[in-house]
Amino acid sequence: MKSPEAVYQQLKKVVSDQSRILRDIEDLCSYSFDASFGSYMPEFVVQVISAEEVSQVLKIANKEKIPVTPRGSASSLSGGPLPVKGGIVLDVSLWNDLILIDPEDLIAVVSPGVITARIDEAANRYGLIYPPDPSSSSISTIAGNLAENSGGPRGLKYGVTKDYVLGLEVVTPEGNIIRTGGRTVKNVTGYDLTKLIVGSEGTLGVITEATLRLIPKPPASKTLMTIFDDLINSGKAISKVLSSGIIPSKIELMDQASIRAVEEYQPLGLPLDAEAILLVELDGHPAAINDEIIKVKEIMDCNGAVKSIIAKTDEEAKELWKARKLVSPAIVKTKPTKISEDATVPRSQIPEFFRRLKEIKEKHNVELVVFGHAGDGNLHPNIICDKRDKEEMSRVEKAVSEIFKTAIELGGTLSGEHGIGTMKSSFMELELGEHGVDMMKRIKQAWDPNNILNPGKIFPEKGQKLVLFE
Amino acid sequence: MKSPEAVYQQLKKVVSDQSRILRDIEDLCSYSFDASFGSYMPEFVVQVISAEEVSQVLKIANKEKIPVTPRGSASSLSGGPLPVKGGIVLDVSLWNDLILIDPEDLIAVVSPGVITARIDEAANRYGLIYPPDPSSSSISTIAGNLAENSGGPRGLKYGVTKDYVLGLEVVTPEGNIIRTGGRTVKNVTGYDLTKLIVGSEGTLGVITEATLRLIPKPPASKTLMTIFDDLINSGKAISKVLSSGIIPSKIELMDQASIRAVEEYQPLGLPLDAEAILLVELDGHPAAINDEIIKVKEIMDCNGAVKSIIAKTDEEAKELWKARKLVSPAIVKTKPTKISEDATVPRSQIPEFFRRLKEIKEKHNVELVVFGHAGDGNLHPNIICDKRDKEEMSRVEKAVSEIFKTAIELGGTLSGEHGIGTMKSSFMELELGEHGVDMMKRIKQAWDPNNILNPGKIFPEKGQKLVLFE
Repeated sequence: MKSPEAVYQQLKKVVSDQSRILRDIEDLCSYSFDASFGSYMPEFVVQVISAEEVSQVLKIANKEKIPVTPRGSASSLSGGPLPVKGGIVLDVSLWNDLILIDPEDLIAVVSPGVITARIDEAANRYGLIYPPDPSSSSISTIAGNLAENSGGPRGLKYGVTKDYVLGLEVVTPEGNIIRTGGRTVKNVTGYDLTKLIVGSEGTLGVITEATLRLIPKPPASKTLMTIFDDLINSGKAISKVLSSGIIPSKIELMDQASIRAVEEYQPLGLPLDAEAILLVELDGHPAAINDEIIKVKEIMDCNGAVKSIIAKTDEEAKELWKARKLVSPAIVKTKPTKISEDATVPRSQIPEFFRRLKEIKEKHNVELVVFGHAGDGNLHPNIICDKRDKEEMSRVEKAVSEIFKTAIELGGTLSGEHGIGTMKSSFMELELGEHGVDMMKRIKQAWDPNNILNPGKIFPEKGQKLVLFE
Repeated sequence: MKSPEAVYQQLKKVVSDQSRILRDIEDLCSYSFDASFGSYMPEFVVQVISAEEVSQVLKIANKEKIPVTPRGSASSLSGGPLPVKGGIVLDVSLWNDLILIDPEDLIAVVSPGVITARIDEAANRYGLIYPPDPSSSSISTIAGNLAENSGGPRGLKYGVTKDYVLGLEVVTPEGNIIRTGGRTVKNVTGYDLTKLIVGSEGTLGVITEATLRLIPKPPASKTLMTIFDDLINSGKAISKVLSSGIIPSKIELMDQASIRAVEEYQPLGLPLDAEAILLVELDGHPAAINDEIIKVKEIMDCNGAVKSIIAKTDEEAKELWKARKLVSPAIVKTKPTKISEDATVPRSQIPEFFRRLKEIKEKHNVELVVFGHAGDGNLHPNIICDKRDKEEMSRVEKAVSEIFKTAIELGGTLSGEHGIGTMKSSFMELELGEHGVDMMKRIKQAWDPNNILNPGKIFPEKGQKLVLFE
């Protein structure tokens, strides 16, 4: 590798405006972390604004074997944008100029730095929606969502980011600009590079443009809140709703710890003795959902619900959803560190997963809060802790490991929507086996022979273990 | 490569029942063709019935560098199961013992030789459906659908095969058994090998089991038939319906040539002067679709429809759909050869694609019939010809090339649902560019270094051109 000064001189030649190359320590510091764990200093930050610039920077990096970590808003919960091997951070967040809605083709064409929620807002003006709604959508970039294949509550009915990507412009690790997919809903021309790159966590290419599928805005929605005094029963009720023929747009869960945290944070009158609250949203034709919401209520009532409330107006619905929205800010009030997991199980295993989580909580004496997208088995077991407390963190590490192992034992997966990143790479073989991981590595090796693009992610290094205490 | 006899001796050791290894010329003959073009003799057929057998056969083939072509029912329209390089055909069609429906997890687990339609039937018993419905579903195997990522009319609302695959068991070209994905709807653990393998046309691995997503059966459906005296207007009407906020489960088109062919084949009283018939199906909650079907009719009537008929009963609906079902058998009555294409354009380009197809038809004086899944831009321009007529076939070749080029010019793709196979490989770079094709080839090379699995497909050989006259 050349001297930093020599690299800087090369970068200056390919980035049109020198002020978009950062190398002051203060600047680099703000690019050293994300919403997960650890802090790693890059040597340069390049704030790119065109595919040509990305291509040129990657060509330099590939030649000089400099690690490159793409980054959007760094709201990642799994370490995606952390420059764990130093080198260059490629910041796309300034590159937010393009949100083109084509209402006839039902698509949006966007630049990588566009904030996710802006796409949905732009679509709304044409009576359309962009369904993926990760909780961070008001701050996350679409490029980050694409890299991690983000989910969200509406995933239950509408699927995840990947289900809405028709085409990409991508710069390969060697700096070539390619286009994958296109503007059509059906496309089977060669291998599906689009769906390979979405969710590859910035290790296979840098996304410089995306063509996204939009759908018509559902004309109406209805919300139901149901209270359970038994967590396992709430899991069973979810299963019953899902096998009834009705597909809600969302089924979100709050366990007792989240209910109590919210009440402490901002009293809403939630029942402190309840073991679970389910929030269900239906959307679609008004006649259909008026009928279906009553059926959902009946199913809940027959399966151990203590109380169910159907919101009469959109205002009332918003009020009911407020509780769920407050969970994340509320739970970090007690202790500073939140380990947010997204291990996912098959729907039928939701009650058993609840039972096992309870056991893990008691066994390791950790503050485990469970909430999230219960309808698709994508729960968010969060552990609230203090990362400065070594003894506590060692218990947390054990609990997190057991959560991963339990999810896999129940036929589930390490990650439903957050990604592997640095946090879960040591568990990859447990889920995929040696040959499964090997076939993934071969793709990485074939596309990025110098291993310059987001190195240190997804694939475990020899002997790597989960370490939360720094 | 060893002598055929030596290879046979090795195969006998790993296949439990010798009668499942075929090498008589009569047997090999029936494995030499599919529903597309050309005829190629394999040296062996192995009728596999377990992943272990597939693994052992691939290990032998990889060691001895023998080409292996996986095959289901060979209903492929693009040459997927043709053993163009000889070697071993791996027939999975006997391996149809497993169709396990799990109504709680809303999934089906199936063995590769299961006939597609059987999966939907099994799901129906639990009030569920398996949405993908390729026209060949009553004879095609699920493994073939998975290899080609098959579509079908319901793709408009429900998507294609890939959208329903949660997990796979796959044998790699080197004979290792891996599992991709799983039983959960959300899964972002590492690269998405599931979606890479689905649609890879048997070039990256042999699928030995699939876990498929099922959905609740829509409670009701409604059918509308609309007649247009102008083909372009029918295209415009489709666009208007799709941007109205209503998503039909199907919008199928028949052009004048298909209408006339059907009437000649079996008189149904279709209007011979009409330039297009659209068949629209809505499904969902009865109250919703009763309302929406009227809206669709209004949109059709405002956009040049001559006549629209809403079926009053399911029987009437079936009667209306009969016309569409008869197109394929009807059009091959006039001449023996049918070149069935599936070039796909963005929805807004449907009227322009119609116009350009008309031009191509006249310019090359070919019998071009257009029908298919107009709602998602996935039309089926079919050319009816006689493959023994050299002069005609040279005109057909030119017309087919122009259809491909036109689709790409209009922002579309070579193939919406049939695959590339042997038929379209020479057009790959036109759509994907040199680097795009190269990144696909790198995956193939990394996974199958000896190029034994379905060689001669997808990727063009040097100087390869479309040749239809044998």
